[in-house]
Amino acid sequence: MSFENTPASTHLKLQGIESSRLFQGAVIFIIIVSALAIGAKTYDLPPLVLNVLMTLDKAITLFFLMEILFRFVACQDKKRFFHDGWNIFDTIVVIGSLIPIDNSEAVLLGRLLRVFRVLRLVSIVPELRFLINSLLKAIPRMGYIALLMFIIFYIYGAMGSMFFSSIDETLWGDVAISMLTLFRVATFEDWTDVMYATMASYPLSWLYYLSFIFLTAFVFLNMMIGSILEVMGEERNLRQTQQAHDERKKMSQQLHDVRQQLDELTTLVKNQGRDR
Amino acid sequence: MSFENTPASTHLKLQGIESSRLFQGAVIFIIIVSALAIGAKTYDLPPLVLNVLMTLDKAITLFFLMEILFRFVACQDKKRFFHDGWNIFDTIVVIGSLIPIDNSEAVLLGRLLRVFRVLRLVSIVPELRFLINSLLKAIPRMGYIALLMFIIFYIYGAMGSMFFSSIDETLWGDVAISMLTLFRVATFEDWTDVMYATMASYPLSWLYYLSFIFLTAFVFLNMMIGSILEVMGEERNLRQTQQAHDERKKMSQQLHDVRQQLDELTTLVKNQGRDR
Amino acid sequence: MSFENTPASTHLKLQGIESSRLFQGAVIFIIIVSALAIGAKTYDLPPLVLNVLMTLDKAITLFFLMEILFRFVACQDKKRFFHDGWNIFDTIVVIGSLIPIDNSEAVLLGRLLRVFRVLRLVSIVPELRFLINSLLKAIPRMGYIALLMFIIFYIYGAMGSMFFSSIDETLWGDVAISMLTLFRVATFEDWTDVMYATMASYPLSWLYYLSFIFLTAFVFLNMMIGSILEVMGEERNLRQTQQAHDERKKMSQQLHDVRQQLDELTTLVKNQGRDR
Amino acid sequence: MSFENTPASTHLKLQGIESSRLFQGAVIFIIIVSALAIGAKTYDLPPLVLNVLMTLDKAITLFFLMEILFRFVACQDKKRFFHDGWNIFDTIVVIGSLIPIDNSEAVLLGRLLRVFRVLRLVSIVPELRFLINSLLKAIPRMGYIALLMFIIFYIYGAMGSMFFSSIDETLWGDVAISMLTLFRVATFEDWTDVMYATMASYPLSWLYYLSFIFLTAFVFLNMMIGSILEVMGEERNLRQTQQAHDERKKMSQQLHDVRQQLDELTTLVKNQGRDR
Repeated sequence: MSFENTPASTHLKLQGIESSRLFQGAVIFIIIVSALAIGAKTYDLPPLVLNVLMTLDKAITLFFLMEILFRFVACQDKKRFFHDGWNIFDTIVVIGSLIPIDNSEAVLLGRLLRVFRVLRLVSIVPELRFLINSLLKAIPRMGYIALLMFIIFYIYGAMGSMFFSSIDETLWGDVAISMLTLFRVATFEDWTDVMYATMASYPLSWLYYLSFIFLTAFVFLNMMIGSILEVMGEERNLRQTQQAHDERKKMSQQLHDVRQQLDELTTLVKNQGRDR
Repeated sequence: MSFENTPASTHLKLQGIESSRLFQGAVIFIIIVSALAIGAKTYDLPPLVLNVLMTLDKAITLFFLMEILFRFVACQDKKRFFHDGWNIFDTIVVIGSLIPIDNSEAVLLGRLLRVFRVLRLVSIVPELRFLINSLLKAIPRMGYIALLMFIIFYIYGAMGSMFFSSIDETLWGDVAISMLTLFRVATFEDWTDVMYATMASYPLSWLYYLSFIFLTAFVFLNMMIGSILEVMGEERNLRQTQQAHDERKKMSQQLHDVRQQLDELTTLVKNQGRDR
Repeated sequence: MSFENTPASTHLKLQGIESSRLFQGAVIFIIIVSALAIGAKTYDLPPLVLNVLMTLDKAITLFFLMEILFRFVACQDKKRFFHDGWNIFDTIVVIGSLIPIDNSEAVLLGRLLRVFRVLRLVSIVPELRFLINSLLKAIPRMGYIALLMFIIFYIYGAMGSMFFSSIDETLWGDVAISMLTLFRVATFEDWTDVMYATMASYPLSWLYYLSFIFLTAFVFLNMMIGSILEVMGEERNLRQTQQAHDERKKMSQQLHDVRQQLDELTTLVKNQGRDR
Repeated sequence: MSFENTPASTHLKLQGIESSRLFQGAVIFIIIVSALAIGAKTYDLPPLVLNVLMTLDKAITLFFLMEILFRFVACQDKKRFFHDGWNIFDTIVVIGSLIPIDNSEAVLLGRLLRVFRVLRLVSIVPELRFLINSLLKAIPRMGYIALLMFIIFYIYGAMGSMFFSSIDETLWGDVAISMLTLFRVATFEDWTDVMYATMASYPLSWLYYLSFIFLTAFVFLNMMIGSILEVMGEERNLRQTQQAHDERKKMSQQLHDVRQQLDELTTLVKNQGRDR
């Protein structure tokens, strides 16, 4: 197959098919069928239905393979195809599904990869792709807050493990388990049971829990407020102010013209005075 | 009954009655009585009171039937009457209450339909109707976020059912039950019990829960921030900026007049210079 | 005591004392002592300390009586004294403490009234009073949302009581208890236990809970967003825009002056042309 | 050591080293190693690894001592060194680690102080230091709200202790324990269990819990909204409006110039009229 030699007109034709509503609709339909098939397998089914599902799965895998190859052929610049994260994701999911699942150990892995096919819905519906992109953009904003949160969890985790490991090994055994327990406390999930257990040995340990809850809640609240403000700031500066700025600029230009006109008039009057 | 022939003056008269505070007040009063009667039936009551409630129920049903007929007659354009969602809702509730409840099976259904009569309070109080309308307007904004959430739940549900169904059939039996369990995890309701159970078999399964919690919380948070921003943007653009824009427009007009006046003056001075 | 004849100078003197930092500080100090005494009584104390506390309580009651009388005398307009909600509140708390608590039945009531003395801290510290006033102002804004919430709770409560009262009498016995159970569900407190119990009889009852949770969460979220926007709108319109508006008004006035000046100049030039 | 006599050039050299990326990176690396060592100690380790960790701990303590001395020497103004809260914090943590931990009682304290070394990460990474500073700035804003919350907790705590102490001594024993129980109720942690227990004796005690939950939720919500607004107000007033204000000021100046020019022109025309 010599893709490089495919004439541009063929490319355009293929791209036309690819971006047609019918093609998109067919792919979305197959993804939903695939998702339903994955869901169906979690129920107890008669052998007949299982066989149908197995055949359906092979057909879907084949369809996705064809579709990704078609998209690759339709793409004019082969390098740019793999610059798009969504294309790479699609390719990995499709190739992952091709791996034959003979021995029972790989069954779960194969089924797991088939689950991720549902995510292809995100890559094919533009609105969802846009949503994910805007969510991803929100992550760096939270980077240092996340680091701070981790430090708080680590310090409290280490302290908890030091003092309470003798009280409940399963909750405070080591620093990692302690951090999991602290996350549980942060979600308020039966946190008083954890506290009452340690308060029997350390009556003041409620200070440990309350300070932790206040710290995390306070940092979380400020992060939320901060991100609301930041997004709002960007939005506002771009859209709303632009119009006002343009209008003021126009008025300033008008004023400039007025002054120029006045200058000319003054010169005229002066000249007339001199002429007389 | 020839509604079409009713003269317009009668219509106006009927509409006057319909929109009068007294009529509205009477309807609201009957709805509240109806609501109290529904609530009263949930208590253990002596047969006498039950009989009274039964009669009251019939009277209320009749009143509501009269009221909806009256509103229909008062409405000039019969087609437009059913274009209003609230009217359709009212009609269905009233007709639903008319179904005789003889056999014991339909008793619950009949009582259920009577419960929805309370919702007529929403359709008759303008402030509540406005509130509901503004809430309904907020739904499409959340459409794709809801779809994304569903995809996340579906993928985690399918994964959970694959791996954990052997651990606890009632929590992870199939994809639907798994999604319900995940919703429970998302509300932090005894989620650690669910996690500890699966961690006994899969020690790393805390990754599954934490990633799920972070994903849903993150998407939810962004949805909330997004909707705050969107509503705010609309609000702002409409109200606040309008005044500033009008004032700037007026000033721009004033400047334009100044320039015109200057033009005239210049011409005048020039002419005088020429005249001399 | 003839308050009406007290000369104005005495009034001013008394008001000076009342609003002095020393007097305010003393009252705050006594309130805190009173709060500590109330708290101390909840511990098991030796009889000696109890006697001291009893005497202290009498002294505090006397002090508060003196203080409220003093404030009343210092107030020039006796009628306006009782127009202030805080003064009425203070008077009721003080008079309530005067009721002798002899028989054991009234002991709890007497102690309860003493607890509310702590609230006098709110009435005396201006910042707290301001805070409470601004919180009270936020209530009407939420009126119709609260009504809507109540309607949702009532409908779901009546439905819950109809269907589930045979499953668990203590949770779904009547409409009032059902609403309490629903509030518990709305706070996510062991709501799955409630759901699993009813799902045994009605497998589809998860629809009831999920729809309820989504409805209340959705209404609550919109209420929160709404109140953020409303407060923001007021704030913004008052503060930020005012300055811009003033500046634009000033400029518009300047423009008006320019046009007037131009008019005069034009008349002058015309007249000179005519004079020549 | 005569720091005061160190020539300025040496200071600059030392400061150069201190603020170099390499030096900063080395300190951050050592802090992370120290954090990992603290975490590692919470696991059951063979004696050999424990010995290695002990030696590592001594090396880290020495390194931190050297680093703080170096920073002190590099600082030109010795007094200003201790004006910076972060420097004081670093010094205390380092000196705390120097205390020899011979007897078993002080072991926990010594290990506790080593835990706080992780916080040095905050003091050395500028972004985290900035984050903490901005979080600290948010505290005073919440001062009076916190006081109000404390008053609410205290009053409800005293009331709870009065009425319910006979029902459950461990939950309502005294005012302090009652406040802890109320905090548990505020986090919705098994609050219905607490309520059901007291409702057995006082059937109306649900009023106590619901009013408490509504009060705290309402105050908390308003605090959140308030702090969003306040931060937003500052942000906005500083950034966005500044540009508009500057532009309006410039236009006003232009208008002033126009009027001055007109004045001059009028005088000129008048003089010419008189000259003729």
